[in-house]
Amino acid sequence: MNEDLFVRHLTQLFPAGKDVVTGIGDDAAVLDLAMPDGMLFLAAADQVIRDIHFTAETALAAAGGKLVNRNISDIAAMGGIPTHAILTAAAKPFEENTLKDFHEGVARAAARYDVAIIGGDLAALPSPGFAATLSIFGKVEKEKLCLRANAKPGDWIYCTGEYGNSFHSGHHLTFQPRLAEARFLAGTYTRAMMDVCDSLFQTVRSMAEASGLAAELAVDMIPLREGATSAGALWDGEDYELVFAVSQENAGALEKAWQFTGVQLTRIGQFISGTAGTVNGDFPETDKAGYDHFHETD
Amino acid sequence: MNEDLFVRHLTQLFPAGKDVVTGIGDDAAVLDLAMPDGMLFLAAADQVIRDIHFTAETALAAAGGKLVNRNISDIAAMGGIPTHAILTAAAKPFEENTLKDFHEGVARAAARYDVAIIGGDLAALPSPGFAATLSIFGKVEKEKLCLRANAKPGDWIYCTGEYGNSFHSGHHLTFQPRLAEARFLAGTYTRAMMDVCDSLFQTVRSMAEASGLAAELAVDMIPLREGATSAGALWDGEDYELVFAVSQENAGALEKAWQFTGVQLTRIGQFISGTAGTVNGDFPETDKAGYDHFHETD
Repeated sequence: MNEDLFVRHLTQLFPAGKDVVTGIGDDAAVLDLAMPDGMLFLAAADQVIRDIHFTAETALAAAGGKLVNRNISDIAAMGGIPTHAILTAAAKPFEENTLKDFHEGVARAAARYDVAIIGGDLAALPSPGFAATLSIFGKVEKEKLCLRANAKPGDWIYCTGEYGNSFHSGHHLTFQPRLAEARFLAGTYTRAMMDVCDSLFQTVRSMAEASGLAAELAVDMIPLREGATSAGALWDGEDYELVFAVSQENAGALEKAWQFTGVQLTRIGQFISGTAGTVNGDFPETDKAGYDHFHETD
Repeated sequence: MNEDLFVRHLTQLFPAGKDVVTGIGDDAAVLDLAMPDGMLFLAAADQVIRDIHFTAETALAAAGGKLVNRNISDIAAMGGIPTHAILTAAAKPFEENTLKDFHEGVARAAARYDVAIIGGDLAALPSPGFAATLSIFGKVEKEKLCLRANAKPGDWIYCTGEYGNSFHSGHHLTFQPRLAEARFLAGTYTRAMMDVCDSLFQTVRSMAEASGLAAELAVDMIPLREGATSAGALWDGEDYELVFAVSQENAGALEKAWQFTGVQLTRIGQFISGTAGTVNGDFPETDKAGYDHFHETD
């Protein structure tokens, strides 16, 4: 798992810095810059790479939109609002029209969520390809901050939307980050939330592990995207939906208040006391290595 | 020119955002987050790509150090102090040992300048290669902020260090960013400063253009790195030295106060009224396309 590997290296190597509320290992880092509105500063970064996160047939404007939207999804998962971003890209051929298409996709997605692109860098690649990184900043009220480590024993696990088959359905390019829904949830109904980038299974596992809990997943409750199998819903990834913990007291109020959103909401399991990071469930017998996965590193 | 191309696209596409003091087009973006110490927030991003910014023979730890140091150089050029950074990397083969070497180089350089690495992402590349982006944050007192647009007619152009032959000499991997020197200069002796990434000529041209001025360069005054030609000193790039404007009144005091630094300081020209971005000088007759350049995109 790329994120696990990254976290393992970096938490060993890099001491926590000054002003850091939460560093490596959540969807975004959290800094307390003592801003006068009392909000915390959020920062995250994600990449898109051709033939990994999109194909040679994908319009570069769509790849640019995906890059912005997956970063916004990270800020949303923290309960925050995205504000600014910095873009780097590297390409071969290094052509103005290619870059312009990509930048237009970035600009359109950023404008939709009122994110200002404030700087960046362009470079050539030595061999044919396209890679870009967006670093995104945001802010969140202290009382709305959502961390993966905040799940409590007995909390229900809820998720938005549908899962699986993100690549072939095109969802991984066309999704809209659950920003409004995350803001609605944060602080009021949950303080423990993640977005589903790597996979639904991995997301639940990460929340359980960070919270020192086990989890029970009701696999047959997981909503399937059209064309998805149960295995794909668990392990494909790139769903960019929200997974979050809700206390049993709050669950009824959430389900009632949620209706206005028009977004599917499903209770798919429960965090329980147990060995940290264990996820129990009636999992399909598919070999995990054999399902349709997209990330080469997962 | 990669930076010119980037700036052209993005300033057309991306409106300036809220809280943005200076966006795309300087060494770092400047945000006013109303921090209680009155300081401005700085953010910049740069890349290192194998076979562009380093070779297959370069130790990955050295490439990691270069990535951190060239980003710190950007913050230094604004007059600021680096504080935090986010790292993304993409590689094939995607091997733990390779990544560990790179991360150790990043960690060592970051620790030297007290920069906390607070997050990031790892991904696979589809074909053999290595690419990484560091996004760096920093802060600067309002009265120390240095912008490339702040040069005034009649200001002398000073530079630190030596120029040219950065690639073959290994300087591009071993340089230390001029952070202490930049802090010494900022606000007291200059408000107009850049670091030399693309090339000395391009740096002077960018400052002149942004300031609405022309520049005269005394080419024979430019200090040459061992093995460098005059053309290389002007156009090679990757020197990571400081170029800055000093008023005629301040020049004497600067030269006197500077002595303690142990770093070479040279007056290499003057900003003058004239067509914005024009750089006059007794330039070597080398075909610009023929000198030893390193960036494929320059």
